[in-house]
Amino acid sequence: MDQQKLREQIKIAVNKAKTEKPFVPSITNNVTRNYVADAQLAVGGSAAMINLPDEGETVAKKCAAFYFNFGTFSNTLAGTVPRTMRVLHGTGKPWVLDPVGIGMGGLRTDLLMVIRELPPDIIRGNASEIIALAELWGLDTGSASGTLCGVDSVETSTNARQAAISLARHIKGVVAVSGEIDLVTDGKRVFLLNGGSPLFTKISGSGCALGGVIAVYAATAENSLIAALSAVLAFNIAGKNAAKTAAGPASFKMNFLDELYNLTGEQIAAGDFSLEEL
Amino acid sequence: MDQQKLREQIKIAVNKAKTEKPFVPSITNNVTRNYVADAQLAVGGSAAMINLPDEGETVAKKCAAFYFNFGTFSNTLAGTVPRTMRVLHGTGKPWVLDPVGIGMGGLRTDLLMVIRELPPDIIRGNASEIIALAELWGLDTGSASGTLCGVDSVETSTNARQAAISLARHIKGVVAVSGEIDLVTDGKRVFLLNGGSPLFTKISGSGCALGGVIAVYAATAENSLIAALSAVLAFNIAGKNAAKTAAGPASFKMNFLDELYNLTGEQIAAGDFSLEEL
Amino acid sequence: MDQQKLREQIKIAVNKAKTEKPFVPSITNNVTRNYVADAQLAVGGSAAMINLPDEGETVAKKCAAFYFNFGTFSNTLAGTVPRTMRVLHGTGKPWVLDPVGIGMGGLRTDLLMVIRELPPDIIRGNASEIIALAELWGLDTGSASGTLCGVDSVETSTNARQAAISLARHIKGVVAVSGEIDLVTDGKRVFLLNGGSPLFTKISGSGCALGGVIAVYAATAENSLIAALSAVLAFNIAGKNAAKTAAGPASFKMNFLDELYNLTGEQIAAGDFSLEEL
Repeated sequence: MDQQKLREQIKIAVNKAKTEKPFVPSITNNVTRNYVADAQLAVGGSAAMINLPDEGETVAKKCAAFYFNFGTFSNTLAGTVPRTMRVLHGTGKPWVLDPVGIGMGGLRTDLLMVIRELPPDIIRGNASEIIALAELWGLDTGSASGTLCGVDSVETSTNARQAAISLARHIKGVVAVSGEIDLVTDGKRVFLLNGGSPLFTKISGSGCALGGVIAVYAATAENSLIAALSAVLAFNIAGKNAAKTAAGPASFKMNFLDELYNLTGEQIAAGDFSLEEL
Repeated sequence: MDQQKLREQIKIAVNKAKTEKPFVPSITNNVTRNYVADAQLAVGGSAAMINLPDEGETVAKKCAAFYFNFGTFSNTLAGTVPRTMRVLHGTGKPWVLDPVGIGMGGLRTDLLMVIRELPPDIIRGNASEIIALAELWGLDTGSASGTLCGVDSVETSTNARQAAISLARHIKGVVAVSGEIDLVTDGKRVFLLNGGSPLFTKISGSGCALGGVIAVYAATAENSLIAALSAVLAFNIAGKNAAKTAAGPASFKMNFLDELYNLTGEQIAAGDFSLEEL
Repeated sequence: MDQQKLREQIKIAVNKAKTEKPFVPSITNNVTRNYVADAQLAVGGSAAMINLPDEGETVAKKCAAFYFNFGTFSNTLAGTVPRTMRVLHGTGKPWVLDPVGIGMGGLRTDLLMVIRELPPDIIRGNASEIIALAELWGLDTGSASGTLCGVDSVETSTNARQAAISLARHIKGVVAVSGEIDLVTDGKRVFLLNGGSPLFTKISGSGCALGGVIAVYAATAENSLIAALSAVLAFNIAGKNAAKTAAGPASFKMNFLDELYNLTGEQIAAGDFSLEEL
């Protein structure tokens, strides 16, 4: 794989988001939706948070890409999500799935089984969630077994490696695993990236915001791999910079969005990663 | 119109909010409700966010003014909103409508048609929303036609001028259009104000927060025009000041609330605007 | 009561939360849930916000403690709350109740009457809420009578003293009243603590965040009294420090979480309080 070309495509995806302001609505939890919207706006997207079924269909027709996050699920969303996804599939628009909260309740599990046959372009989660999703879908997870307790990961992305590869191959798309080391794979290659800052685990919403920003870049990138890499690189660089002057998690949370906003396509495209062909 | 008197009334409305702490509940979206509450507290109001029908009626009886914002609408709110509005009309208390999300779905449209006959004292929106609402209500929009995509405006307030005037005359109240140039009209006069900072478009919730603060001033101002002008002036001055030391949108968002909190009635009353009698 | 031992237990509770990262989910309002989660993360907890009934039961089985806050109540939560509480009672896990919004509507009142017979380990509220809850439950409030208007207190914690003592004795637990002077009682002793900073009344969510942090410490503390005292002391010290460099309520809100994150068990255990045996 030509790394020079890949970095060029990252630069283009990031800069296009700033100028084109793609409309990327979300169906996402009500804990961190404000931070998701602000992160999407920071990288150039136009955000909107959707609840009702007919509104999901309406915006799916108008949007450039879509973000789904299953934290704080509801009966209303159980109707909105599949109707919205079907419009997206019908029109070939890219969408990102964040299976946060997997294993917590029946409604979420039922819907994730529907999505097994209606696959997203990109899946983002922490290691525990990625392993749990691969298990739920009956895919090879290597020796890993998902033990979930709440929404924080108890696994490393290294342990989620096989689950991520299996999921990427199943959806014929890309999987991004967040952690101390981030892992991005399209089922043919595995990228490892330094996760930016441990302060990300001390604030709510950084994973959700990453999913939302991947969706923005999915609207402007050549393909799903470029979208996921662009967002993960951006978060890691912005996180590393933000931690330098942070006095604690709250100033980190603020600095991070400022840094994310100020990063250029050139800076993001120059970020560090290691690559292994499978 | 006597500008000196108008500025004196603005000063009084702003300072009264600081000392009287009027109770101004909201029915508003769950993306930015935290920022709305913090903005209302910053200018002196006492805030509460309402969901259930009987709670809307209870607080409508006790409140000084009310704020309605239709982002992230729900079936529950479809019951709560008209019942709450009827109490407000019956008791003659001022309320503000923010028609965000207009055009996204049927529930919202149905309710906006009910509100056509149960008009608010003040409407606040971006240019696209104001044009779309005037169109929905069958009012004269000049040559403008509402094209909506999500919640961000694709129109300028100049293009929404006739729609704003028509709406103000229909509700016999005041319309505030947010944008690079803000426009406020009571159907007899048009005020133009510099919109403060382009960073307002890079954070979520500044429009919602403005609606919430207009409602606080509606509780303490001589009339709806003074309420809207006080809030728009306060936002523009605070935004301009906040941008000076901001490193990006997130520090702007924080600085803005600090500046809003620190502004005196005298400072706000001295703000810039141009005025045209119709 | 041995104050030296009490301070030693506070130190242990605070430091254990940092190392053990107890899982403490919440059912809480959608205005401030982001701030609650961030405060819980800042002191070391692992947070999750729950809506659906089966999810409440699932996490109640896995959690170390639980936080309930009744702001922005809903029909879904009316089902989730009692089912979750019954699992907590059955397994003997500590939980905290924040009766915010008491008196606003019928659903909340009905549920608070159920909780009278299914009592929490700790109740946290402002003075108006504590008086209103004692009245609702038919307990002695001294001469105080709850007058509520929205979610801000119109009473002092001194006036809520008898109500707090009555509630603590009824639940055989602990009550924490927030205000200019904070009051904590287990029905046998009354602790008075300086409330930190008046800026707490200019931001949304500080009371909710306190409830969430009490629940985190309830998972690591020797008993409910230590949990409540640890959290109230931490908030007061962090609030006082945060105010020193704040330019207004928004920078205070950020500084506060940074300070809370940086406080050690030793610093919190050295905080000021006065103690009266009843």
